[in-house]
Amino acid sequence: MAETAAIHDMNKPMLGTLLHQGVLRIVMQRPERMNSLSSEMMAALSAELTQAAENPEVRVILLGAEGKVFCAGHDLKELTAARAEADRGRATYTRIMRQCSDLMQQIVRHPKPVIAVVTGVATAAGCQLVASCDLALATDTATFCTPGVNIGLFCSTPMVALSRNVAPKHAMEMLLTGESIDASTAKEFGLINRIIPRDYLDQVVQKYAETIASKSSQTLKVGKEAFYRQLEMPLSDAYDHAANVMVENMLARDAEEGINAFLQKRKPEWTDG
Amino acid sequence: MAETAAIHDMNKPMLGTLLHQGVLRIVMQRPERMNSLSSEMMAALSAELTQAAENPEVRVILLGAEGKVFCAGHDLKELTAARAEADRGRATYTRIMRQCSDLMQQIVRHPKPVIAVVTGVATAAGCQLVASCDLALATDTATFCTPGVNIGLFCSTPMVALSRNVAPKHAMEMLLTGESIDASTAKEFGLINRIIPRDYLDQVVQKYAETIASKSSQTLKVGKEAFYRQLEMPLSDAYDHAANVMVENMLARDAEEGINAFLQKRKPEWTDG
Amino acid sequence: MAETAAIHDMNKPMLGTLLHQGVLRIVMQRPERMNSLSSEMMAALSAELTQAAENPEVRVILLGAEGKVFCAGHDLKELTAARAEADRGRATYTRIMRQCSDLMQQIVRHPKPVIAVVTGVATAAGCQLVASCDLALATDTATFCTPGVNIGLFCSTPMVALSRNVAPKHAMEMLLTGESIDASTAKEFGLINRIIPRDYLDQVVQKYAETIASKSSQTLKVGKEAFYRQLEMPLSDAYDHAANVMVENMLARDAEEGINAFLQKRKPEWTDG
Repeated sequence: MAETAAIHDMNKPMLGTLLHQGVLRIVMQRPERMNSLSSEMMAALSAELTQAAENPEVRVILLGAEGKVFCAGHDLKELTAARAEADRGRATYTRIMRQCSDLMQQIVRHPKPVIAVVTGVATAAGCQLVASCDLALATDTATFCTPGVNIGLFCSTPMVALSRNVAPKHAMEMLLTGESIDASTAKEFGLINRIIPRDYLDQVVQKYAETIASKSSQTLKVGKEAFYRQLEMPLSDAYDHAANVMVENMLARDAEEGINAFLQKRKPEWTDG
Repeated sequence: MAETAAIHDMNKPMLGTLLHQGVLRIVMQRPERMNSLSSEMMAALSAELTQAAENPEVRVILLGAEGKVFCAGHDLKELTAARAEADRGRATYTRIMRQCSDLMQQIVRHPKPVIAVVTGVATAAGCQLVASCDLALATDTATFCTPGVNIGLFCSTPMVALSRNVAPKHAMEMLLTGESIDASTAKEFGLINRIIPRDYLDQVVQKYAETIASKSSQTLKVGKEAFYRQLEMPLSDAYDHAANVMVENMLARDAEEGINAFLQKRKPEWTDG
Repeated sequence: MAETAAIHDMNKPMLGTLLHQGVLRIVMQRPERMNSLSSEMMAALSAELTQAAENPEVRVILLGAEGKVFCAGHDLKELTAARAEADRGRATYTRIMRQCSDLMQQIVRHPKPVIAVVTGVATAAGCQLVASCDLALATDTATFCTPGVNIGLFCSTPMVALSRNVAPKHAMEMLLTGESIDASTAKEFGLINRIIPRDYLDQVVQKYAETIASKSSQTLKVGKEAFYRQLEMPLSDAYDHAANVMVENMLARDAEEGINAFLQKRKPEWTDG
């Protein structure tokens, strides 16, 4: 029923959004297309993320999807259609892979925490989307795989994000066998943070996000940025960088307010709170 | 009985090999020497891997061992004998450590997936061998350790592979205490992928390997190579590299065939299949 | 009672120490200040570590704390007091963050293994202290968190150590939510090695440390140093470095003695044993 309805409803926007208590939900709404990352879907996601970055009311972002497939990765029909082009698709593939890599890095560099909420199948670039988020929540109906190897197209860009989330042998097993892992295994591997019962999903996810939304946005921004930067540095450079970040953070208004509130045992009032 | 028989059978080759359905089994056959990585054993392994790289019928490699010891690491008698040399062994040690590091990197750079099959004790460079493989399967009789510290010789080269497989505190505990971990702990740590009941080992391992052997060899080669390269790059360089790999992969014959087969719901026929 | 006693006992040194069987216990003794890393505490720890590095009788270091809080991180009152300075504290913050980063790196670069023994709450720079140690043991009363985000001060320097111990999504969850994890979760994440029943803590910890203390100090030093150095290198450089370390290690007296003892089935006698 739900799927039939969806097919009849192609005019609805690719993404649904809902902003509540500082938490922006972005929901991919193309279940009949398995929420695949067509150029159009990637452009929509990127635009929404750009807006969310600029909107001071958005403090945390949830990224979810309608239907049984969270996201099936690239749109194979779009890729195949490009073979008819004069260069056999090279320019199109280059553009699409660039667009996809940019989208993933937009999440990593986004000033606000981005949390994947996975209730279905996340494959290939869909799995990469989960890996690229700062945090990931899932129901036990979620599964994850990088099955490109089954169609002769190794999940090379997905593995960039995957291999920065899980141990090498775990990543390699997913990449070489193309087999799915369930939510429980994904949690063990470190690909997702928590498994939440479906019946309570909305409430738990909202509460989890609001916990983060209650922090100072400026502090979250500074911290998230520093996290990914220092991760790529040798230890002593990482400490130099993080120590500088910490000094500037101490001198910013929200740390002063936060520490005072803590010492005075009251709730802090953030600059943009 | 088995061990007595082995002692009487020193003329058999160091390595047994069996090629079946694209899966090459390489078996270390010096159980009476604990399959130690003597110069001779390393040369034999390296030669076999070189051949396997060139043989189009080999699609996946299994690396196992006869006896209760998978591999005991370097041959201590060979190392000790070199102390009698004029330079107290320096040239020999340099050669042997180089040979061993080259062998481990030959596995990492091998165009075909290499899977360790561990049914016994894997110590020092033997543990490194497991860590260096792309995947590792084991029975619950397998154990793993880096005990060099017990004999005054820290497992410095083994730790290069080990510390790229498991979390730092896990690696450090193995290296500083020299104690063994069992298969279950090794799985938790991410050093091995699966524990398989001994009674079903051969069938399960063969089936697991055949699953991978059924993929396009060209795709596996491209993907494996990109995996280890991108792992050492900062995120944005990794994406640039992987995106290029993906574009070339899309333009290769096997991806075209694989995607078409998928869209047409039929089995793909690989170039070298 | 214990806490009242502690308040009356401010003249006791910040650190208690006990050297037994090659194992030096360093115990932070400011439970009434939650063993916070004031400049004074950091200076005391650093001085103790420097002494321990030079003392040949110290082979392994245990780092513990009195009271229910292992270490609460920076001293917020000290930080807040500096706001009254002409530069609003910038110079002081720079000095303190530098001092803290130096202390953490002193542990990493220390020639002897350093093991955290955590029986209480380890927060912020206190959690960083645990992450910076080579190994960590805990009771089930230990908890870990990086709650800076709650007071507007992201745990940026703690995350340098944390993110080198646990998977990115695990680190991010701790950093963004500010919530505590229990000992069991910390073990799953790879932040600690073992959970030890409180009733047996002293005996088990001492025995664990003595196991490591029984190794050659020279070998431990060489191995620990190589571990952290190679970890930051690309694979082939790491192998070049580790192979050199291994050759020099083979030529050192303790490896010769250790290997001979092993082949002769007797206990080795280390140079400094």
